[in-house]
Amino acid sequence: MKIVCSKNDLMTGLNIVSKAVPNKTTMSILECLLIDCNEGVIKLIANDMDFGIETIVKGTIFEKGAVAYNAGILVNLIRSLPDNDVTIDTDADYNTTITCEKIRFDKIGSRSSEEFAYLPNVYKNFPISISKLTLKDVIRQTIFSISDSDSNKMMSGILFEVVDNNLKVVSLDGHRISIRNIRLKDAYNIKVVIPGKTLNEISKIISGNDEDTVNMFFNDNYVMFEFDDTTVVSRIIEGEYFRIEQMLSNNFLTKININKREMLDCINRATLLIKEGDKKPVILSISDDKVDLNINSILGSMKENIEIEKEGNDLMIGFNPKFLIDALRVIDDETISMYFVNAKAPCIIKDEEENYIYLVLPVNFTTA
Amino acid sequence: MKIVCSKNDLMTGLNIVSKAVPNKTTMSILECLLIDCNEGVIKLIANDMDFGIETIVKGTIFEKGAVAYNAGILVNLIRSLPDNDVTIDTDADYNTTITCEKIRFDKIGSRSSEEFAYLPNVYKNFPISISKLTLKDVIRQTIFSISDSDSNKMMSGILFEVVDNNLKVVSLDGHRISIRNIRLKDAYNIKVVIPGKTLNEISKIISGNDEDTVNMFFNDNYVMFEFDDTTVVSRIIEGEYFRIEQMLSNNFLTKININKREMLDCINRATLLIKEGDKKPVILSISDDKVDLNINSILGSMKENIEIEKEGNDLMIGFNPKFLIDALRVIDDETISMYFVNAKAPCIIKDEEENYIYLVLPVNFTTA
Repeated sequence: MKIVCSKNDLMTGLNIVSKAVPNKTTMSILECLLIDCNEGVIKLIANDMDFGIETIVKGTIFEKGAVAYNAGILVNLIRSLPDNDVTIDTDADYNTTITCEKIRFDKIGSRSSEEFAYLPNVYKNFPISISKLTLKDVIRQTIFSISDSDSNKMMSGILFEVVDNNLKVVSLDGHRISIRNIRLKDAYNIKVVIPGKTLNEISKIISGNDEDTVNMFFNDNYVMFEFDDTTVVSRIIEGEYFRIEQMLSNNFLTKININKREMLDCINRATLLIKEGDKKPVILSISDDKVDLNINSILGSMKENIEIEKEGNDLMIGFNPKFLIDALRVIDDETISMYFVNAKAPCIIKDEEENYIYLVLPVNFTTA
Repeated sequence: MKIVCSKNDLMTGLNIVSKAVPNKTTMSILECLLIDCNEGVIKLIANDMDFGIETIVKGTIFEKGAVAYNAGILVNLIRSLPDNDVTIDTDADYNTTITCEKIRFDKIGSRSSEEFAYLPNVYKNFPISISKLTLKDVIRQTIFSISDSDSNKMMSGILFEVVDNNLKVVSLDGHRISIRNIRLKDAYNIKVVIPGKTLNEISKIISGNDEDTVNMFFNDNYVMFEFDDTTVVSRIIEGEYFRIEQMLSNNFLTKININKREMLDCINRATLLIKEGDKKPVILSISDDKVDLNINSILGSMKENIEIEKEGNDLMIGFNPKFLIDALRVIDDETISMYFVNAKAPCIIKDEEENYIYLVLPVNFTTA
């Protein structure tokens, strides 16, 4: 195989597919990425068996072939080259020479494509189309509340549920639920749980114009994302997702409107008094025109009040500060509405149209 | 004790003295910094027993006193506050309240100044005065070749030797020597070895106008640096520094002039083929108008040539690439001169005026 690409085009492609090369693996073929130009285009492919990425790079093919290279070494070598044409030439014995200007790397190891696992085929039925920006946003605004423990596989994924032309994206970890609702152009009927890891990597490699479209295709075991010259295929998590409807009651007894920035800054400050592993709640005392936030720990105490608009009852309620911080951080509104029932029932943060809904369970606290 | 300072002034001071708070210590008083306003100014002091920093912060003293605070907690709390006046108020029982706008931290722990070690007194005789920029430069250009192992204390320091009005700054680690010569305005006669750690921290806290002056005072056991409102006192390393004069022979048999950037890029690329711990040399083959650089490892080989101007013999010589990289990285000249005797003798990189001299020992190599 012999190809010539510009260094920059090659690096762009390598950076994309590298996201599907696992950091640690005992199978050395998984540390590899494949360059395949048997079909007349230069394809870079990496596949960690849970999800895989394929992208097309511009360049000239002088000799067809498909060769696997250690991803880390190839990326480092190409990155070190000047901005000019790069030739990658692999002979029949899998000895590779990489040349660029006066620089020549020789005897770089490479392997047959026969050991390499190509991406699974996904049947391309009707795609769900959303903009890159929207996809990145819904991932950012839900992924923080997946569970990273392996004990419940379903919690490590994010639900994508389409009913008619509403896409609902849901994540939860047993203490909180994050929901985003998106209006789609067309109507579908789909319910899949996509691994958080896949979505995390996708949101890193989506670049370019935010208005560009990402097409998502679904079949029984896989989901496929298509954008630009890149295809990502991922396993989906099998099984029934959690029923969350009954948690999202609308019978609140207290509603406040509060400045998001002030509340976030205040809770961030409060957490400075909490040592790692120490489970001190931040306590909200809601009265007519303000909420007092305070926290007590062995390091000291903090008190601060923030002006609010309130409807309904006064209330004293405690939260794990991290859970409030996580939700507040991803909401783009300047003023947010929080809904409460009592000190034992979950708090809901949502906008009027329910574009976003964040549910956080309260924690017990003692008033000192 | 009760003081009011602007948050920004306080943070600037805290960031400076924090450099003398050790990261890990079994003595909790060493994790503290002292605020002392008994002398009518607000002084922040930290002291890790090897070196200490004292800086003066603008503000108003409402009640004199001297109190020690856990540095990490105090810095985090102050940093979290809005840009406004901050009041620190510690009562007779060492309970501290920190307030700013609507924010109130209470019951923050603090301690008596009696346990705290103030900085040692250094007699202020004639100072050596150099600009901040020069001091930062000489530290950056020599500190990389100190030894970080504890086996030879002297190698962990940097020699500051003044003879008449020449300041010579030297570091070495057994494989290489770095020397900077600086012309001073006045004549002195001083020879001290300053711990690398002290100089590293000093170069981090020197800020502001590069032309400002740093005054250095010396006595038998300590060196003191004065700049802006800050004083740094450090122990010096006792004992006789290494004799290096006989290593710096001028009887070279090969001299080359080479573009520094090209050589540095080339060696950096070559090191991509070296796994950590693998001691593969980069081999320079010097001929009439070019030097071929090449490296061989289990990952592959690299070859590249760079144009040079040469005087004297052809030569083939091997180096630990890291040692060449470290020296090349800190030299500001575009073209550098390298002097060689033979493949067993050290190479010297220096400018004509000997403002800098870098000596690097070669390594054995086999030509494959």
